[in-house]
Amino acid sequence: MGFEPSEEIRGTLKRIRQFVDEELIPLEPTLLQEGFLATLPALEEKRAKVKELGLWAPFLPQEHGGMGMSLMDFAYVSEVLGRSPIGHYAFHCQAPDVGNMELLLHAGTDAQKARYLDPLVRGETRSCFAMTEPMHAGSNPVWMSTTAVKDGDDYVINGRKWFTTAADGAAFTIVMAVTDPDASTHARASQILVPLDTPGYTNVRNISVMGHAGGGWASHSEVTFEDVRVPQTNRLGPEGAGFLLAQARLGPGRIHHCMRWMGICERAFELMCARAAQREIAPEKPLGTRQIVQAWIAESRAEIDAARLMVLQAAERMDAGGAGAAKTEISLIKFFGAGVLQRVLDRALQVHGALGMTDDTPLALWYREERAARLYDGPDEVHKISVAKRILRSYEGRQ
Amino acid sequence: MGFEPSEEIRGTLKRIRQFVDEELIPLEPTLLQEGFLATLPALEEKRAKVKELGLWAPFLPQEHGGMGMSLMDFAYVSEVLGRSPIGHYAFHCQAPDVGNMELLLHAGTDAQKARYLDPLVRGETRSCFAMTEPMHAGSNPVWMSTTAVKDGDDYVINGRKWFTTAADGAAFTIVMAVTDPDASTHARASQILVPLDTPGYTNVRNISVMGHAGGGWASHSEVTFEDVRVPQTNRLGPEGAGFLLAQARLGPGRIHHCMRWMGICERAFELMCARAAQREIAPEKPLGTRQIVQAWIAESRAEIDAARLMVLQAAERMDAGGAGAAKTEISLIKFFGAGVLQRVLDRALQVHGALGMTDDTPLALWYREERAARLYDGPDEVHKISVAKRILRSYEGRQ
Amino acid sequence: MGFEPSEEIRGTLKRIRQFVDEELIPLEPTLLQEGFLATLPALEEKRAKVKELGLWAPFLPQEHGGMGMSLMDFAYVSEVLGRSPIGHYAFHCQAPDVGNMELLLHAGTDAQKARYLDPLVRGETRSCFAMTEPMHAGSNPVWMSTTAVKDGDDYVINGRKWFTTAADGAAFTIVMAVTDPDASTHARASQILVPLDTPGYTNVRNISVMGHAGGGWASHSEVTFEDVRVPQTNRLGPEGAGFLLAQARLGPGRIHHCMRWMGICERAFELMCARAAQREIAPEKPLGTRQIVQAWIAESRAEIDAARLMVLQAAERMDAGGAGAAKTEISLIKFFGAGVLQRVLDRALQVHGALGMTDDTPLALWYREERAARLYDGPDEVHKISVAKRILRSYEGRQ
Amino acid sequence: MGFEPSEEIRGTLKRIRQFVDEELIPLEPTLLQEGFLATLPALEEKRAKVKELGLWAPFLPQEHGGMGMSLMDFAYVSEVLGRSPIGHYAFHCQAPDVGNMELLLHAGTDAQKARYLDPLVRGETRSCFAMTEPMHAGSNPVWMSTTAVKDGDDYVINGRKWFTTAADGAAFTIVMAVTDPDASTHARASQILVPLDTPGYTNVRNISVMGHAGGGWASHSEVTFEDVRVPQTNRLGPEGAGFLLAQARLGPGRIHHCMRWMGICERAFELMCARAAQREIAPEKPLGTRQIVQAWIAESRAEIDAARLMVLQAAERMDAGGAGAAKTEISLIKFFGAGVLQRVLDRALQVHGALGMTDDTPLALWYREERAARLYDGPDEVHKISVAKRILRSYEGRQ
Repeated sequence: MGFEPSEEIRGTLKRIRQFVDEELIPLEPTLLQEGFLATLPALEEKRAKVKELGLWAPFLPQEHGGMGMSLMDFAYVSEVLGRSPIGHYAFHCQAPDVGNMELLLHAGTDAQKARYLDPLVRGETRSCFAMTEPMHAGSNPVWMSTTAVKDGDDYVINGRKWFTTAADGAAFTIVMAVTDPDASTHARASQILVPLDTPGYTNVRNISVMGHAGGGWASHSEVTFEDVRVPQTNRLGPEGAGFLLAQARLGPGRIHHCMRWMGICERAFELMCARAAQREIAPEKPLGTRQIVQAWIAESRAEIDAARLMVLQAAERMDAGGAGAAKTEISLIKFFGAGVLQRVLDRALQVHGALGMTDDTPLALWYREERAARLYDGPDEVHKISVAKRILRSYEGRQ
Repeated sequence: MGFEPSEEIRGTLKRIRQFVDEELIPLEPTLLQEGFLATLPALEEKRAKVKELGLWAPFLPQEHGGMGMSLMDFAYVSEVLGRSPIGHYAFHCQAPDVGNMELLLHAGTDAQKARYLDPLVRGETRSCFAMTEPMHAGSNPVWMSTTAVKDGDDYVINGRKWFTTAADGAAFTIVMAVTDPDASTHARASQILVPLDTPGYTNVRNISVMGHAGGGWASHSEVTFEDVRVPQTNRLGPEGAGFLLAQARLGPGRIHHCMRWMGICERAFELMCARAAQREIAPEKPLGTRQIVQAWIAESRAEIDAARLMVLQAAERMDAGGAGAAKTEISLIKFFGAGVLQRVLDRALQVHGALGMTDDTPLALWYREERAARLYDGPDEVHKISVAKRILRSYEGRQ
Repeated sequence: MGFEPSEEIRGTLKRIRQFVDEELIPLEPTLLQEGFLATLPALEEKRAKVKELGLWAPFLPQEHGGMGMSLMDFAYVSEVLGRSPIGHYAFHCQAPDVGNMELLLHAGTDAQKARYLDPLVRGETRSCFAMTEPMHAGSNPVWMSTTAVKDGDDYVINGRKWFTTAADGAAFTIVMAVTDPDASTHARASQILVPLDTPGYTNVRNISVMGHAGGGWASHSEVTFEDVRVPQTNRLGPEGAGFLLAQARLGPGRIHHCMRWMGICERAFELMCARAAQREIAPEKPLGTRQIVQAWIAESRAEIDAARLMVLQAAERMDAGGAGAAKTEISLIKFFGAGVLQRVLDRALQVHGALGMTDDTPLALWYREERAARLYDGPDEVHKISVAKRILRSYEGRQ
Repeated sequence: MGFEPSEEIRGTLKRIRQFVDEELIPLEPTLLQEGFLATLPALEEKRAKVKELGLWAPFLPQEHGGMGMSLMDFAYVSEVLGRSPIGHYAFHCQAPDVGNMELLLHAGTDAQKARYLDPLVRGETRSCFAMTEPMHAGSNPVWMSTTAVKDGDDYVINGRKWFTTAADGAAFTIVMAVTDPDASTHARASQILVPLDTPGYTNVRNISVMGHAGGGWASHSEVTFEDVRVPQTNRLGPEGAGFLLAQARLGPGRIHHCMRWMGICERAFELMCARAAQREIAPEKPLGTRQIVQAWIAESRAEIDAARLMVLQAAERMDAGGAGAAKTEISLIKFFGAGVLQRVLDRALQVHGALGMTDDTPLALWYREERAARLYDGPDEVHKISVAKRILRSYEGRQ
């Protein structure tokens, strides 16, 4: 009973935890003070080591070089990796590549897999996913202006996207584009593979986000497609399936994210407790003797435990019945987990005082960057409303 | 995996749920408009029916006339019973009798069991537990003024207690009294059985709580002991064990309470959703079309699910390792669950508008009476601080 | 500058404060333990004394036997009176009579004033206001089913109202009824004076609210009008002006309410601080040495000060420009003030522990009854939305 | 009555507001995308223009080249300047220079004024204030390790400070150092002027704060003093007066900060409303039609108004009775205002969706940098506790 990892996975988790603590956390000062690109050379060495240890891409089937984990088992892994901002990257299960690999695995043709998936799986290339548009609210994913018009055997793509994470340096993108403007709302768009050296594609800018334009994987771009021409064989799945594929991609992705958040929460909690236990506010009087700090610790512990159990329950339901069966659960953890994440980080930062504002701990990075948790993959409010509508339907007509 | 009830218990839960919905909820208008005593005759008939159905006192061993449930299974039952304010009473597992029965079972002598436990188990008597004193903070349970002094073979008890729930009409009380003022803090007090017809005992008043002095089981008394004399054989367990026994009594009791709260939450949630789906704020515009109400529904669903999982996890740990192993979990659910309860009731009341203030639904009763959830069995703040101290101990000395 | 009362009014406030503390607060134990009706005889004596002291009905013009105060000055008075649940009644400025007196003063004919206002002003009769209907959401005040149909020189009224405060024992009601169903939304209803001994009027029940049906002034009734016939000269103001008059009645009424809440907050704050300073949680360790309690005290002080300044600013704007000029301010204080009230009462109750649940202090009464503050005169949510819409209008079209 | 600016100051406020909107806000894209140093050349031109317009250093006496404003009038100015992150700098009233100028004005000798104040007033130099130490909690300002030992006519200073804002490029610092370790707690330290080209002084690093080490005025340094020798005539005020002077410096400074926050809040509120009015979430459906967004707008309006009134009241009391008379008010606005600031920024960011995370608006800058508002000049918790203790003192001994 309960949601404890099996004996078998527990050993793997321990090995991963040790790697994160001993190999990745020591790279954090460079990351925090000098940025992702400065950290990359050392990080690539760690990635090689992860591969050697047989811990590469845990969510991928073994025949593709991964560990073949269930969603539930990968949830535990994602939590452990979340302890460091570079955990997922080191183990090659970082967004957006992880979602793209899953997409290609499930919807790609053999030719697409050979050309796009295989080098991506090996970590030789990176990829991105071009969906959100600056002129349309991300909360309404079926409303977009980018089009892909058939011309002979090709698609000709035009449009502007932004928040295309990791476009900088990526080999290809999967782009959402309207292929049939006259179809019903959810059947208008398709997903199309576009190599980024295709003429007409431009990375306009790495958007400055919370003070940094970033670079490489750690960036979010505004990109344009001007008469970008690719063969129709680059389409993923059937025409008009873009929205469905995007939903399928997001379901497990939200579980991954939420468990990553739990890892962040656990690390922040540890930092908060260590600081409270050791920082003296007067001789021999550590901060942790103060009731207000004690209350924050207890409240954080309760909220983290609560959110974690909910994520694991959602993972279990998704493993058992698919993303469709766990729609409500996924929406619940999306906003509940993001709220817990923000509050725990806020308290941990406050306990650190001025130090919490500095980049001497990862708290400030998470505080500013993970503010996005309440926005990406659907803002909190969209999830709340969709949950409520689903629930209320069952009360209509009753007396 | 997860925390779903076993196939076996699921049948029982269904029967109990049906009884609550069909037999008890129809008694609520009387309870809400006329009070507990007016409801009692009908309620006693229901209790007889419960006995006939073999659903009596589910937490008691079968040899004592119960269903022999584990803490975990009883947690599910407590949730279902919590749906109505009279659920636990109808199934004879109401506080404080349930705790007293457990105490007598585990610490009572055969003679004590014959005299006090057996009629209580059968529902022929009621009992109470006299612990809190008006002059001492309930948050510091080892600080009390009531004394029991040995005199020959007897104890002579003097003191004043209050919030002695259900003293009105009870056959006996278990009183906490200092038997050795010179012992270490946690070994000063003992628990002593006192028949309430013993000379020197007075029920000073049924305290008016949230507007009502109440009566019978549904009351909280201020009582005095003036030279109350009982034989020393009335002591429960060893001398000085009062605090330990109280703790042991409270552990599972807190799980019961928390699952009862979850039952209240579920009922309040249903009432809120039904109201939102059906109440029109303009022709053809039900209240549930409003985003603010939708947000409350989603937030309530998330919080109830979260709290429920935490309570079940605590129950599982207590079943596996005893109350000691689940100390932190129990404190966490105590304040987290009480907070969820208050917020869910508050939202449900607000969605009902003026109707929520009336006694036409049970919401107003719960809103005012369950405010005590954040106080009894240790106020939220005491639990938060004790959790934090326990956690912080493991961080001391680390660097 | 600032919002301090003038030198002149300060003397009056001091006298009123003294009366509340010395004459009214000593009546509270009876009120809290035995109810309003049991308190009434002593309270009537106090009312006579108030009249003698020249402090009667401070908001009324002097020619009508009042003190002729501005809204601003009466705001300060309302705060002081709010310190006790019977303060406003003792000084004859209790809802709903205060609003009815204002209505009659401003919209009544001489004949209406002579018959209805004069005895009411002298405190010889009581009145009520029948607006809310059980079948229609109070948040949509223009939606009602009660009708008044002209028949000869009369109106014949049919309908059902509830939450008609103080109907029990009142001499007359002002009823809102649709007089022209075909008029535009805000011009459908009129206000009509109905003596409560008119045939066809029935007080169906004193609604049980938060556990009590109450009685006399302290009650809320469900009432029906079945072919109730009154002369058309009983209409207040022009036909179709019902909604406008109701709005005019509510504007200052909300200021009164909000300042009454501030008085409750101040009293609760004092009780909380006194308890924190004096209640020991261990020998020589008062509760107020604990940081969590300290934080509540500071947060409450800040919130009360903030809400109070906002109410005074709204009163100033209304005195200067009428209710229309202060629409936004009034909506802001309505929900902001009600939120502060609820939080301050909640903290004060928690600091009192079990005592806070009892009727030994007025906290439990306020905790349960003033929950309605977030509902009456428009629920929080209605005020929030109307404020936002008004603000957003000025942003439309801008770039 | 109320807290409206006088007719006279209103004209000045209008001119300043216009300057901020027309001259400074257009510089923000450079600031947000390229940083402070890249903005500096253009900003210096604006500063020259401010001087020409006679709006320079509004808080300074006219004989020192300022506008001679009262604290109250400057509060209104600070609010208007707060609308842009570079407002205060442009008008030469930026922290920490503003506090240092006030210190030198009130406690400096003529020689100190000539050497340090005059060029600072003219904007030819910059300064910093070295108080917080990395090894001691900033919340306990009397606990420090930096010492200044007399040696002949000099002080020899040793110690380490951090969060010395704007040290990078400053001409001098005022350093807090223990001059008499045996004195009573509050009389141990003195304030000493140290030119930053004095041997032994080192700027160890511009601390990376929320992702940026910054530069020039927009930086926070860690600095060390190793046998730094300055004449004793560099001491500000009497020996042992360091703490008192620091308190005197902080009082008005907190008002400045709080009104600056109000300016930020107003700008964020405008951005939020404009976004809500114009961003469509579906064709013809602006975001502002959604109730959840409407609730945020109303709640923000209420909270900003409330905080603003409290700050103005504190300013009024400080103008009337000095910082000592307004201690409680200042602590209240410190934590209440910082809380409002954080919530308003959080809501404004959320309404902007992904755009809110970018540096295309100033929201992301404020969201991350103004997180410090809850920490600097005393963390929220320190202010809450000191308010509560002051209040509780008056309840001790009462019954």
